[in-house]
Amino acid sequence: MSNVPKSVVIHEEGPREGFQIAAKPIATKLKVELIEALAETGIKQIDSVALVDPKRVPGWADADDVARLIRKHPGVRYTGLWLNLRGLERAAALPLDIVGVIRLTASETFCLRNTNRTLAQTVDEQRKWLRFYRERNIPLEWGYIMTAFGCNYEGDIAPAKVRAMVAEILSLADEFGYSIDGVVLADTVGMGTPLKVERIIGMIRDEWPELRLGTHLHDTRGTGLANAWAALSLGVQQFDTTVAGLGGCPFASSKGAPGNICTEDFVYMCEEMGISTGIDLARLIECARLAESIVGHPLPGKVMKAGVRPQSLVA
Amino acid sequence: MSNVPKSVVIHEEGPREGFQIAAKPIATKLKVELIEALAETGIKQIDSVALVDPKRVPGWADADDVARLIRKHPGVRYTGLWLNLRGLERAAALPLDIVGVIRLTASETFCLRNTNRTLAQTVDEQRKWLRFYRERNIPLEWGYIMTAFGCNYEGDIAPAKVRAMVAEILSLADEFGYSIDGVVLADTVGMGTPLKVERIIGMIRDEWPELRLGTHLHDTRGTGLANAWAALSLGVQQFDTTVAGLGGCPFASSKGAPGNICTEDFVYMCEEMGISTGIDLARLIECARLAESIVGHPLPGKVMKAGVRPQSLVA
Repeated sequence: MSNVPKSVVIHEEGPREGFQIAAKPIATKLKVELIEALAETGIKQIDSVALVDPKRVPGWADADDVARLIRKHPGVRYTGLWLNLRGLERAAALPLDIVGVIRLTASETFCLRNTNRTLAQTVDEQRKWLRFYRERNIPLEWGYIMTAFGCNYEGDIAPAKVRAMVAEILSLADEFGYSIDGVVLADTVGMGTPLKVERIIGMIRDEWPELRLGTHLHDTRGTGLANAWAALSLGVQQFDTTVAGLGGCPFASSKGAPGNICTEDFVYMCEEMGISTGIDLARLIECARLAESIVGHPLPGKVMKAGVRPQSLVA
Repeated sequence: MSNVPKSVVIHEEGPREGFQIAAKPIATKLKVELIEALAETGIKQIDSVALVDPKRVPGWADADDVARLIRKHPGVRYTGLWLNLRGLERAAALPLDIVGVIRLTASETFCLRNTNRTLAQTVDEQRKWLRFYRERNIPLEWGYIMTAFGCNYEGDIAPAKVRAMVAEILSLADEFGYSIDGVVLADTVGMGTPLKVERIIGMIRDEWPELRLGTHLHDTRGTGLANAWAALSLGVQQFDTTVAGLGGCPFASSKGAPGNICTEDFVYMCEEMGISTGIDLARLIECARLAESIVGHPLPGKVMKAGVRPQSLVA
C-alpha cells in the first residue's frame, strides 16, 4: 500500500486510438472538437493523430488536417503516432509536439505483422529516428515495449524478452548520447493480468531500480483497471488511457473490445483513492459522452453512465 | 503476491440479479434455460431466484415456477434470495437449497429504503431467520454486509460501521449457537476502490484473523475487477459474480451499470494467473452469450467478445 503514488500523469490516447479503427468515417471537425474538449479537462498530453499509411488506416487519412486545425491550449502537448521515419518527418512538419520515443515490440511476429519489419530492422529504424531527434535537438523521453504482456500470434511473452527490450532501449539511447525518462510497458492485445504486471515490473525494478515505468493497458478482456491497480500499487506513475475506452467497437463483432483502459474510469478510481490526476472529472465525463456521440455507438466507459457518485448524492 | 490463493469459490448470481431488474419480461423457460446451462460449467452454487414482493420486483413474479422447473445438476446448489421471513418460508417450500445467511446493511438509510426496516429492526428480523434455521437444522453459512464500501444515500461508509456489522453478525450467530463460515463484504452500489478493499479487509483481519471473507462487488464504475484483485491479493477465496456482468442494462439509461463483476472475465483473470476456479471457461462464455440473447441487449462482459486467447492463437 505504501508504494501507491500521490499523483499520476495521464496520457490521453483516445483520439489517435479511437479514430484509427472507427467503423465509419468520422468528420475531421468532430475529431478536432473532441481533442479541443479534452484539452479543457486538465489532461496535459493528447495523442491526437496517427501519421500512418492512409491505405492501411483510412481513419487517419485526415491526420494532417486535424493536426493543423486544433486550437492549441497552453500547457497541453499534442502528439502523434508514427511507425516509420516518413511518419516522423510528416509529424515534424505539422504543428504537433514532437516527443522523442523509441518503439520496440517484444513479439517479433507481431512486429512483422504490424510494421513489416524484423526486430533487427526495427532497431535500425529506431536509429533513424534517434538520428532525426539528435539533429533537431528533440528530447528523447520514453521507450515503448509493445506486446510486453502477450501477443495474439505468439501467445505468452517470456519476461526475458521484455528484459532484453529494456536493455535494447537503454543501449539505443546511450548510443545517441541520450538518457531516457523511462519505459512504457504496453499490453497491446490485452493479455495482461495483475500477476504478470507484478512479475514484469518486479523483474525490471530488480535490474534497473531507478528506471521510471509507465503502462499502456488495453482492456480487451476486462482486466485493464486490475492491471492498472497492480501497477499503481508498485508505484507506477504514468498511464496511457483513452476517454470512454475508445479504441474499438466492443459490440460490433467478435473481434473484441480492444480499447485502452478508460480515462474517466481510471481518473475516478485514482481520485477516490486520493491519487491526484490533475483532471476535472466532470468535464472529462462530458468528453466521454461527446466521444460516444461522435462514434455513434456505446463505448465501454462506466463512470459516464453511473456518475461519479450515485445520483441521489448529487441531487 | 504470496497471499494469492491457489483456488477460489465462485457463487453465480447472474440469474437472480439479472432478471430482477430486466427492462422487459423474460419468459420463465428462458430463465430456467440459463440456470441449467450455468450448472453445466462447473459452477457449484447458482443464486437462481429472488423470493421478494412481485409488486416491487415484477421480474421475479415467476420465482416459484422457475425454482420448480429447474432440472437439478448433481453437486450444484440452487439458492434464492429473501429479504424477510415470508421470503424465507417461501424458499423453504420450494425445491431450492436453503443456505442459512444473515443479512445486515452498513448504511441504515439504504437499509430503510431497500427493506423498510431500521438497523435494529433488521437485527430482529435476522433473529426470526435464525430461529427458522435452528428449528429446521439449516446450517448457517455466511453473513452478508451490504453497502460495505459506500452508499448511494449516505456516501462513504465509516470502516467502524462495517466492523460493527461483523461483530453483530458473530454475536447473532453465537446467540443461536451457531458458528459462522465467514462474512461477505458487498459493494452494493459500486463505490469500492482497491484501497478501500485493502483497508476494510485489513481492519477485519486485525480483529478476526481467522474469519473467512468473501466479496460481492458491483462493477458500477469499472473498478470491479481491480477490487477483486485487491481482495485476491489479500487471500480472499469466495466471490459472488454474474455471468456476462448481468445485473443491469448499462446502455439503457443514465442509471448506470449496476451489474456485478462478470463471471467469465473474473474466471479468465483467475485462470490466467494460475488460480483454479473449477469452471469450464468455454462453456461459461456460451452461457454469457445465451444471457445476452435472453435479455436482448449487449451485456458488459468482455472475454465473451474478445475470446479467451486472441483468435489467431485458437485457429
